Amino acid sequence: MMVQTQAAHENRGLVEVLTQTEIRKKPPVNLVSRQIHPENTVVEVEGVLFGGPQFAVIAGPCAVESRDQLLATAQAVKSSGAAVLRGGAYKPRTSPYSFQGLGAEGLDLLTLAKEEIGLPIITEVMDGTELDLVEAHTDIIQIGARNVQNFSLLRQVGRSRKPVLLKRGLMTTLDEFLMSAEYILAAGNPNVILCERGIRTFETATRNTLDLSAVPILKERTHLPLVVDPSHAVGDCRYVCPLARAAMAVGADGLMVEVHISPETALCDGQQSLSPAVFQTLMDDLRLMAGLFHRVL
Amino acid sequence: MMVQTQAAHENRGLVEVLTQTEIRKKPPVNLVSRQIHPENTVVEVEGVLFGGPQFAVIAGPCAVESRDQLLATAQAVKSSGAAVLRGGAYKPRTSPYSFQGLGAEGLDLLTLAKEEIGLPIITEVMDGTELDLVEAHTDIIQIGARNVQNFSLLRQVGRSRKPVLLKRGLMTTLDEFLMSAEYILAAGNPNVILCERGIRTFETATRNTLDLSAVPILKERTHLPLVVDPSHAVGDCRYVCPLARAAMAVGADGLMVEVHISPETALCDGQQSLSPAVFQTLMDDLRLMAGLFHRVL
Amino acid sequence: MMVQTQAAHENRGLVEVLTQTEIRKKPPVNLVSRQIHPENTVVEVEGVLFGGPQFAVIAGPCAVESRDQLLATAQAVKSSGAAVLRGGAYKPRTSPYSFQGLGAEGLDLLTLAKEEIGLPIITEVMDGTELDLVEAHTDIIQIGARNVQNFSLLRQVGRSRKPVLLKRGLMTTLDEFLMSAEYILAAGNPNVILCERGIRTFETATRNTLDLSAVPILKERTHLPLVVDPSHAVGDCRYVCPLARAAMAVGADGLMVEVHISPETALCDGQQSLSPAVFQTLMDDLRLMAGLFHRVL
Amino acid sequence: MMVQTQAAHENRGLVEVLTQTEIRKKPPVNLVSRQIHPENTVVEVEGVLFGGPQFAVIAGPCAVESRDQLLATAQAVKSSGAAVLRGGAYKPRTSPYSFQGLGAEGLDLLTLAKEEIGLPIITEVMDGTELDLVEAHTDIIQIGARNVQNFSLLRQVGRSRKPVLLKRGLMTTLDEFLMSAEYILAAGNPNVILCERGIRTFETATRNTLDLSAVPILKERTHLPLVVDPSHAVGDCRYVCPLARAAMAVGADGLMVEVHISPETALCDGQQSLSPAVFQTLMDDLRLMAGLFHRVL
Repeated sequence: MMVQTQAAHENRGLVEVLTQTEIRKKPPVNLVSRQIHPENTVVEVEGVLFGGPQFAVIAGPCAVESRDQLLATAQAVKSSGAAVLRGGAYKPRTSPYSFQGLGAEGLDLLTLAKEEIGLPIITEVMDGTELDLVEAHTDIIQIGARNVQNFSLLRQVGRSRKPVLLKRGLMTTLDEFLMSAEYILAAGNPNVILCERGIRTFETATRNTLDLSAVPILKERTHLPLVVDPSHAVGDCRYVCPLARAAMAVGADGLMVEVHISPETALCDGQQSLSPAVFQTLMDDLRLMAGLFHRVL
Repeated sequence: MMVQTQAAHENRGLVEVLTQTEIRKKPPVNLVSRQIHPENTVVEVEGVLFGGPQFAVIAGPCAVESRDQLLATAQAVKSSGAAVLRGGAYKPRTSPYSFQGLGAEGLDLLTLAKEEIGLPIITEVMDGTELDLVEAHTDIIQIGARNVQNFSLLRQVGRSRKPVLLKRGLMTTLDEFLMSAEYILAAGNPNVILCERGIRTFETATRNTLDLSAVPILKERTHLPLVVDPSHAVGDCRYVCPLARAAMAVGADGLMVEVHISPETALCDGQQSLSPAVFQTLMDDLRLMAGLFHRVL
Repeated sequence: MMVQTQAAHENRGLVEVLTQTEIRKKPPVNLVSRQIHPENTVVEVEGVLFGGPQFAVIAGPCAVESRDQLLATAQAVKSSGAAVLRGGAYKPRTSPYSFQGLGAEGLDLLTLAKEEIGLPIITEVMDGTELDLVEAHTDIIQIGARNVQNFSLLRQVGRSRKPVLLKRGLMTTLDEFLMSAEYILAAGNPNVILCERGIRTFETATRNTLDLSAVPILKERTHLPLVVDPSHAVGDCRYVCPLARAAMAVGADGLMVEVHISPETALCDGQQSLSPAVFQTLMDDLRLMAGLFHRVL
Repeated sequence: MMVQTQAAHENRGLVEVLTQTEIRKKPPVNLVSRQIHPENTVVEVEGVLFGGPQFAVIAGPCAVESRDQLLATAQAVKSSGAAVLRGGAYKPRTSPYSFQGLGAEGLDLLTLAKEEIGLPIITEVMDGTELDLVEAHTDIIQIGARNVQNFSLLRQVGRSRKPVLLKRGLMTTLDEFLMSAEYILAAGNPNVILCERGIRTFETATRNTLDLSAVPILKERTHLPLVVDPSHAVGDCRYVCPLARAAMAVGADGLMVEVHISPETALCDGQQSLSPAVFQTLMDDLRLMAGLFHRVL
């Protein structure tokens, strides 16, 4: 911490005189920067390694809906080779009248799934008041795209000892994204996994535009591991698999993919969820590709 | 509240089956909608009326920096005719090393300014844990652009009895913006003022692109009052005054403008702050225009 | 021309070493620049003056459809105070199966309308091979948004003696827009009128996002006159009038507005066309505002 | 042609009543559509096949600069396995003072390179008046991004017997892109190769944002072959190779890559050009990948 505080102090003079426009253009030198930390940061989660040779696949339903839905999906993604189970208990939804997640009950189901199936868990925290509870049930804390510049929450998870997966916002430049990660590192938590999940553009054929250029650029600028979420980007399961393969080819350290035991009945984002059978095919493809890219699944 | 819950319940079926793409396209019928509330909502703040004939101007520094800076600026904007004093105590900043605001000390200075100068206060809340404190010192609670989809915070200010000014996000569609306001209304707080402050586009000549088309469209779709913040949109004081005049001409209910007693020494956003002399000229122009647009300042 | 060639030559060294990214950020000093031509350029078209105190309103149908439609619309807009008649004979359409305009027959009808009604004419040229014909029938040559970087066409109209109205493209930065105007000036035609008509953004509530910030910025950077086209920007006649008033308030030199004698039967863009009665109301409003903004209609 | 005209006629009624907003949302059924032409169109160019199992790589300098530069680059890309030589004789440049290409002299050099090195040629046409000349010297006619909605030029190349490579514009939705291809097919030329080359977004870390999601979506909607140009998208040679590999993984039919014998002295876009050595490495990587994706180089 002492070294970090020192680095932060030294940067302060420089950064404070920059306007926001300048910050958008100029990659600042900070704790996230490869310039001061040339080797990859490898984040370890119950034996899964993000940022090393492993190509770590996070899979599971958008939202935890029920014991049966979660356990069946967890069993399916584990048997196909997923390394981490995802599932939302607190769901950020555009409308207050959409399904908002099961909350604490969802967290209990995730803990149950971990015990029964044996995969580490990632779930989203939306608010600092829920952080202690979420932290007690999850192995990775997810910060969603809409909270990428919720600086209070970033500082709070920066004081956690659990790894954090930080999603890029719909409108976040790469430099802003790295500055949001910097909030977490500056607060003392070095275990941050970045996640590219699509940006908002004029194009309406996809839910968002997956920005795969972000992968080589971020890998050059920062030592933090980086995964790609093609499900939220394209919003349509037909296009998820080719983009997942492209994510490996472009150099990502892993994937975050939505899988649902029964996509057509999902309470949330069913259109973009893979069925277990399609997920199995994707994992087979990635396993075939992995050797070429010096990766192991 | 009972009627609102009923309305919410009736909408639920419809809204839950919509995908996000559909929500982006289809204006939902909700508490914010003019279809169920045809007359303007008028939000009253210590005698200032948002949404009626008054053209209410909120002015003040980006950040509260010191007693002298705040009082001098407050005196200046009051004498030019501003109706509400703005000033940030908690500042959302892209970098953790930028000035983050004076916090509680800034809130005390705002209370002092209110007592000494006599203008009602607006200041931003960034986190639910600070809400009680902020609420005790402010007359209007501001939700910043980066928190427009911080749904936990929206629900929390929805339970406050203080009016809320909700800023549009940098990449929020008008329908998403209204749905965020709906969170506040659905939680029980009907006193919401919307604020258009520019969206993020490809154009780099301005900090953001002020979307004045949003004004007639929002005024048609919702009964809530709407003000325009040209300062954050263009990010350059030279262009603030013409856009402020355009905001009145296009039908906004008021303005939010950054004024600093000494823009060149401001700790935050000095480039976009008006000097008191320029603000005086702007208010003179708006007073000349007001009659034509059936407004009073 | 010699001085221009000299200036062009001197700039060449500087500009050639800039990457496109740099050009997007740095306003180059060129023939269009106020730095080398501080006074406003006033473009004269049959007694109508663009760039001086006159607020010049161009109005008429999107497309010339028939003798009756054109003459009736022309008569209506003239009696309301329009200064120039617009009407498309060659129409750029996304689909090859949409109505493409009447072509040469449309040009003849425009000439007829000028003779019968007495307004100068503006119509679009889409291709260099049609330029002689269009030039013979029009008083202002319009370059459409999709041709803003059709550099061959820009050079060709740069050799014409007729004034050119150049529309900003859907994704043209202000610096690129000025560089497109520079092509015309560098080819020898100093009479260019710029037209802001909305840019493409993520927002789907409007056809495009009208960028009124462009007005004060362009008026500062260039000496060329600038009009605003709210019809193509918002794509919905309900929002055209408030934005037209805002265009005067923000400092534009005039307007370009679509008016159709019978919007509901228009072959092209009927949804965004004003009826003659609504246009009359708009012109009345603008006349009331004009004095305040030191303008005459 | 008769069948095409018939199809066009039948679609007319449907398409004409759509507003542009609707066209942006609704994939129209047309000559480009897989619904009426389920098998892939394979475009043959001197034995190179676009749209079949071959992964066809187009490579060469941004602009033809000199005999030596072109021949040396051509020799290098051929020996690495490129299938087609690219080189611009007419260059669309934002500024009139930037290098505009060698014109007719450049075309002669391309013909020389074809004779000496033996690769088919692709070069851009910017204007209908140059079409006969360009057509006589090239094997594939390129339509650049800025001309994607230059409908006159699309119709003109639609009457050519040479294949056309159509680049997506910076602001073109996928549906608009397909409608531009439809102009060419409707005019009688079925040999169109689509090219995704990045769209303009808010992100400034790259020149444009490469939209690889476009690949599976376009391959689903149309039978036309599709290549990816990562050079213009990212604008930085360091990121071209990973994105080129991703393009194969996502399902593109080939690539278009800028290679320069001496990138640091290039007159145009040197920053984004690969050196011959880096291009050789890229081709080696693609050859290793090809089997997995059922491709041959």
